[in-house]
Amino acid sequence: MSMYDLIMKKKHGLALNQAEIEEMIQDYTAGTIPDYQMSAMMMAICFQGMTKEETKDLTLAMAHSGEILDLSGISGIKVDKHSTGGVGDKTSLVLGPMAASLGVSVAKMSGRGLGHTGGTIDKLESFDGFTTSLTTRQFIDNVNRIHIAIAGQTSDLAPADKKLYALRDVTGTVDQMSLIASSIMSKKIASGADAIVLDVKTGDGAFMKTFEDSRSLASEMVSIGKLAGKDMTAVISDMDQPLGYAIGNALEVKEAIRTLQGEGPADLTELVLTLGSYMAVKAKKAESLTDARSRLSDNLHNGRAFEVFRQFITAQGGDVRQADHPELLPSASLTEDVVVSEGGYVQKILTEEVGRISLLLGGGRITKDSPVDLSVGIVLHKKKGDFIKPGEVLATIHANDSGKLALAKEKLLQAYRIVPEPTATEPIIRENLE
Amino acid sequence: MSMYDLIMKKKHGLALNQAEIEEMIQDYTAGTIPDYQMSAMMMAICFQGMTKEETKDLTLAMAHSGEILDLSGISGIKVDKHSTGGVGDKTSLVLGPMAASLGVSVAKMSGRGLGHTGGTIDKLESFDGFTTSLTTRQFIDNVNRIHIAIAGQTSDLAPADKKLYALRDVTGTVDQMSLIASSIMSKKIASGADAIVLDVKTGDGAFMKTFEDSRSLASEMVSIGKLAGKDMTAVISDMDQPLGYAIGNALEVKEAIRTLQGEGPADLTELVLTLGSYMAVKAKKAESLTDARSRLSDNLHNGRAFEVFRQFITAQGGDVRQADHPELLPSASLTEDVVVSEGGYVQKILTEEVGRISLLLGGGRITKDSPVDLSVGIVLHKKKGDFIKPGEVLATIHANDSGKLALAKEKLLQAYRIVPEPTATEPIIRENLE
Repeated sequence: MSMYDLIMKKKHGLALNQAEIEEMIQDYTAGTIPDYQMSAMMMAICFQGMTKEETKDLTLAMAHSGEILDLSGISGIKVDKHSTGGVGDKTSLVLGPMAASLGVSVAKMSGRGLGHTGGTIDKLESFDGFTTSLTTRQFIDNVNRIHIAIAGQTSDLAPADKKLYALRDVTGTVDQMSLIASSIMSKKIASGADAIVLDVKTGDGAFMKTFEDSRSLASEMVSIGKLAGKDMTAVISDMDQPLGYAIGNALEVKEAIRTLQGEGPADLTELVLTLGSYMAVKAKKAESLTDARSRLSDNLHNGRAFEVFRQFITAQGGDVRQADHPELLPSASLTEDVVVSEGGYVQKILTEEVGRISLLLGGGRITKDSPVDLSVGIVLHKKKGDFIKPGEVLATIHANDSGKLALAKEKLLQAYRIVPEPTATEPIIRENLE
Repeated sequence: MSMYDLIMKKKHGLALNQAEIEEMIQDYTAGTIPDYQMSAMMMAICFQGMTKEETKDLTLAMAHSGEILDLSGISGIKVDKHSTGGVGDKTSLVLGPMAASLGVSVAKMSGRGLGHTGGTIDKLESFDGFTTSLTTRQFIDNVNRIHIAIAGQTSDLAPADKKLYALRDVTGTVDQMSLIASSIMSKKIASGADAIVLDVKTGDGAFMKTFEDSRSLASEMVSIGKLAGKDMTAVISDMDQPLGYAIGNALEVKEAIRTLQGEGPADLTELVLTLGSYMAVKAKKAESLTDARSRLSDNLHNGRAFEVFRQFITAQGGDVRQADHPELLPSASLTEDVVVSEGGYVQKILTEEVGRISLLLGGGRITKDSPVDLSVGIVLHKKKGDFIKPGEVLATIHANDSGKLALAKEKLLQAYRIVPEPTATEPIIRENLE
């Protein structure tokens, strides 16, 4: 069938079969199907949707458009984790070493931040010398030796997804659940893990703002992964306020270190224990979720999780003295407290806006090639449900430019809604899908 | 608004305003909006449709993307006619001179044939020396002098439509009523006439196969034209069998000549009288449709219509001896009768298939640059409702290749459905929309 015929088929609401999807993705990657036909197809998919079978076929076709990472050199079950991205989301920094401390083989591909959401690689680069440019050999050796390695996505990982996403981005065809799910899952499947734990964020700071959308994205991804033979779990976690208190690369690393030492914020600790328990059980390093949680929690308090973090930073070229002495991590030249004039209860935090404030300070990327200032960001002192007195500090801004600092202070005040009555809050874990 | 925003707006079912549509069409014609964004927009329009206002705005934006023909040099009301195309459709060859014989100023742009439908220009080129490459000056002078000129569409006529149609053609976005209507009407409006009579074909040989689709296309076009200030009428005419008996360029010219001499087939004669009456009334050359029809019919029988035809052929460089002696027109080297073995009533003629048989004989164009054999084609002897005896001639094939002739005979027999019982037939004029 020609691409024209495939467009007509989808336009009329019919499902494409596996051979059709494979050929379409191969030809598009090779450049023999032009962008203008593919964008028409993507728009038709936005209106007609895709079946679970089609979504799985598209995902696998994109995963196989480049090399599938061969992790057979790693002994045991390889577990990957993916977050759909949020504000203050330093989960991987804590979760990876913590899970590795139970013997889980954490072989993870990470990305950089874009827009209001940060990226794990940027955060890790707060350590002098740290690199995610590992050869496959180094990657496998590190996982075998210390149970954890985090590498940057190579350009050969699911190149079809890369090309297709760039097209969708400019043709108004991003917001279709099956396309979003297949884009994420194609990279995960190409990354070669046996089991995948998904952290699907929901709320104002997340890509999916409503719980229903988050649940359907989670469900699509779990379904694709299972059809592709992967052991899958998705956790839907709250992103209606930043995770933890720190937003900004080095600031988040410091909070991650405290969490690995058993002194982290309650929401972040709860999230890593939940995700980590699934990882440990999937990797057969714990008998049950309860067993896993108790041993993971122990390792946060007995120094083992932090010790793996130290080994991990060292193994990837980072200066471990900065882990032992976080004050050596990049720090901003200006810090200023944001103080409220009227007191009350924090009812709402405009989370995406908080991410944008960090971006404004220089802590994020507007385009793919923007430089990132690792030192700047925001440390919140109050979160949803908290009471604040007049004159009390709401947050501290870390900046390197006084103009940006002033603007950030003003915007941060506006990002909080403070009301006279106590308000209900959501738990960090909203739902688990297996 | 950026093109991205316009795509999202349409995707969400909102109407684009005039300024947005104008800018979009200008930028697309200039090449600053890429094909891949426009094809996504076209697909979104296929699902969300366009309002009458949007359709009018799109039509006018495309009409104004090139030069609007300035026909102010022609005295009186200029009337154009457009057919949506069919098999054996030689209407313009008869209608133009016939209307001109009443003093109607017929200033017409015509196209060439493509696929199973023929084109007026190809047919007229059956006359040695005939040309449709007229300067605007020649075009206007001819209309002022003999009330008729037919020119080929210049590349500067609605260039946005040309570019957009080529894109729609390969992205599965042709079959949307408002887009079809605006494509046709943009060229008609750019052609500068004051009044337009549309001949919308319906049935198996037409672009619109169902009566409902034909009526909605007719209604869209009349609505656009009226919003653009044109005097509009649409006639929906039957294309569930070829028009007249001849299919193929020179064969159709011969049938047109006989019709201009009052000896044409009933369906073709009825159609030209209906369309011509509207044209004469719009041009204020007749007091009523009845008055127009009676005088037009007179001119088919008293030689005046044919005399204008002779002047028209001469004025555009054609050899008028071929009009007086049609046997001098191109003729095929082989002719063979198709004879039926079993008799009965003609219930159905696969009309598009008959068009394709003419194409197969070489009488049409598969791609825009294919050469056309003006001499070949088919002359039917029986049409729907007719009785045929065993051994009687169903049709005659005119060919220049014995292999193609044999294949055409076989296919033509299969294109007829002959049944034992008499069957009902449709009138040629199905409906008029004003």
